[in-house]
Amino acid sequence: MPRARPTMRDVAAAAGVSLATVSRVVNQLSGVTPETRRLVERTIEEFGLPAPKPRGGTPKPVEGAVYVRCPYVLTDYFGLIVSSIAEAVDRHGRQVILNAGEATQDDPVLRGLASRRDVGGAVLILPPESSEDLVRLSSRRFPFVVVDPRTALPRDIPSVSAAHHSGARQLTSHLTALGHTRIGVIAGPREWLAADARLSGHAAALADAGILPDASLVRHDQPTTVHGYRAAVSLLDLEPRPTALVAFNDKAAIGALQAATERGLSVPRDLSIAGFDDLDLSRATTPQLTTVRQPLQEMGRMAVSLLTRLLDRHEVEALHVELATELIVRGSTGPASTIAG
Amino acid sequence: MPRARPTMRDVAAAAGVSLATVSRVVNQLSGVTPETRRLVERTIEEFGLPAPKPRGGTPKPVEGAVYVRCPYVLTDYFGLIVSSIAEAVDRHGRQVILNAGEATQDDPVLRGLASRRDVGGAVLILPPESSEDLVRLSSRRFPFVVVDPRTALPRDIPSVSAAHHSGARQLTSHLTALGHTRIGVIAGPREWLAADARLSGHAAALADAGILPDASLVRHDQPTTVHGYRAAVSLLDLEPRPTALVAFNDKAAIGALQAATERGLSVPRDLSIAGFDDLDLSRATTPQLTTVRQPLQEMGRMAVSLLTRLLDRHEVEALHVELATELIVRGSTGPASTIAG
Repeated sequence: MPRARPTMRDVAAAAGVSLATVSRVVNQLSGVTPETRRLVERTIEEFGLPAPKPRGGTPKPVEGAVYVRCPYVLTDYFGLIVSSIAEAVDRHGRQVILNAGEATQDDPVLRGLASRRDVGGAVLILPPESSEDLVRLSSRRFPFVVVDPRTALPRDIPSVSAAHHSGARQLTSHLTALGHTRIGVIAGPREWLAADARLSGHAAALADAGILPDASLVRHDQPTTVHGYRAAVSLLDLEPRPTALVAFNDKAAIGALQAATERGLSVPRDLSIAGFDDLDLSRATTPQLTTVRQPLQEMGRMAVSLLTRLLDRHEVEALHVELATELIVRGSTGPASTIAG
Repeated sequence: MPRARPTMRDVAAAAGVSLATVSRVVNQLSGVTPETRRLVERTIEEFGLPAPKPRGGTPKPVEGAVYVRCPYVLTDYFGLIVSSIAEAVDRHGRQVILNAGEATQDDPVLRGLASRRDVGGAVLILPPESSEDLVRLSSRRFPFVVVDPRTALPRDIPSVSAAHHSGARQLTSHLTALGHTRIGVIAGPREWLAADARLSGHAAALADAGILPDASLVRHDQPTTVHGYRAAVSLLDLEPRPTALVAFNDKAAIGALQAATERGLSVPRDLSIAGFDDLDLSRATTPQLTTVRQPLQEMGRMAVSLLTRLLDRHEVEALHVELATELIVRGSTGPASTIAG
C-alpha cells in the first residue's frame, strides 16, 4: 500500500520539534537556532519533501556552494588540504563542488565562476599560471581564497600558506647547530614561491652561523623521488662532499636517502638528510626523516574561515595568512662527520 | 570605460562558430556536436551571460551533478580514488558535489539524496554501517555506484572493488614458492569484506601448497602502522617463529618492518614481509616492499563509467565489478630462512 505523502506534522514529529518551529524554518523566520534549523531542513529532505522556498525573491548569493579547485591528484599532500576544506565547509552547512585531478589542469573553470548562481565562493589550489584569471575574478568581487599558492599573488587576493621562510630557517639552524657548514640543498622549481622563500630561510640560518650561501650547493627540480635522487647524486659528487643535504620535500629526501645508500654512506653518521612536509612517508624510512611539518589540514580550515568572513562581507585585514610550521627531529640528522670530503 | 554587455554575436566570434550555432545551443536544438555545444556553453559562461534555459519545462534529472561521498581523509589511498572519479565526471561534463573527511562519517546525507533536484546520481565510498540507507536509496531508483565496499552489499547494488581474493592468493603463492610454510597474517578488521576475501585467497594459496591454515597465525586490527607493529610483535613471539609476515595493508607492513628491525631481524634474510595496496610508502622503505597493487584510479574511472550507464538508463548486468590486482615483487621478500624459530 503506498504511503500518504508526508506532511509538516510528520516532519515535526520525526525531528522532535513543534509544528511552529517547522513552520518558522519553512518560512525562513528568526527564533530558531542554527542547529534546529539544520535538523528540520534535513528531516524535510529525508522525507523527500521539496526544500523550503525562501521568501522575498531569489536566494542570497551567500547561500551558494563553495567551489573547490585542486588541479593535482589528491595525495597525502593535497588530499589532506582538500579533506579539511570539505569538512569545514560541511560544518558551515554548505556544499562543496569539487574540481580535482591533474587532467583538469587546463580547465578554464575560473573564468565562469563569478557568474554562476549555484556558487557562492571558492577555495582555490592553483596550477602555477593562472594569475590573470584570478585578477579578473577578484575584479568581479567574487569571494575566494587561494591555498598554498605556487607563485606570488597580488596584494588584495587572500591566501593561506605555510611559513616557508621560517620553516626552512629552523631546519637549517638545526643542522648548523650540529656542526654542518657545507649543506647541499634540493629545492623545488626555481619559479615556485615556496622554493624561493625556503631558500631565503636557509640563507638566513647560514648567515646566523656566519656562513655565506654557495649557489653551487643548490639544485632546482620537481619535488619527486627520482629528481631528489638525481640532485643528491650530483651534490655528493662535489669536492669537498657536503655533510648534510636538505630537501624541500619529503619525496625528494627519500631519493637522497637512496643515493646515499647506493654510495655506502651511512645516514646520519656519514651524511645528514632532512626533508620538508612531514608526509606519512617520512616515518617509513630507516632512519626516519627529520623534516618540517606543514599544517596542511589547518591550511584548509583557515581558508574556509577566511572565505566565510568574505561571504559574510566582513573585512579581512591580513589577506596573506602564513601558518607556522614545526621542526620534527628524527633519526636522519646528526652531528657533522669530521671525515667527510 | 565600462564595456557594453556582450551579445551572442560576441560569443560566436570568441568561440569561432556561426551565430546560428550559438542560437542552436541556446535553444537546445540538435545538429550541434557535444564538443561544440560545450565550447559554446563555456564561452557564454566566460562572458558572464546567463546560462541558456532549457525549453520545455524542468531539466532532465540525468543532467544533475554527481554526488561523491568519501567519509575518510583523502590520503594516498582514498584521494587517488576520488581524484580519478572527479576527473572522469568532469570529462562527462558534470559537476562533482563532494562530501569528504572523517568528520562527515555520521552525516545522514544518503537519506536526502534521492529527492535532491541538483543531484543526478552518486558515487559512494562508505563507512561500514550504511546498508539500510543504501537499500532505501536503491528502492527509490536513485542511480548510484559503491566503490571499495567495506561490507557485503545486496546483489542489486552496483559496486566496484579490487579482486581481493586473487590478489592475496597471488601474494601468498609467491611466498610458498619461496619455501615459506609458516606465514603470519596481519589482516584488517574481522568485519571488513576485504579482510575476509583476502584471508580466503591466502588460504587458497596455502592449500595449493598443501598447507592447512592456522588461525593462531592471524591477527585482525586497524590498517595502521601502530597496529601493524603490535600484530607483528605478537606474531614474532610465536614458537616456531613465522618465516614470513603478510600484511593486508602497506602501512601495517611498515609497522611490521619496524618490529623486525627492533628484534635485529634482517629483512628478507631472516624474515620476509609483504604489504598490500602499493602506496608510495611501499617504495620508501629499505628494503622496498613486495606488495599487491590495487587499481585505485581505475576503480574510480570504472565507477563513473557504470554510473553513466545507469544515468543513461542502460542495463548494467555485472553489478559487482572486480578489478584485477597486480603482484609487485620488491626486496622485502626472499627465500625462507632455514634457521628460523
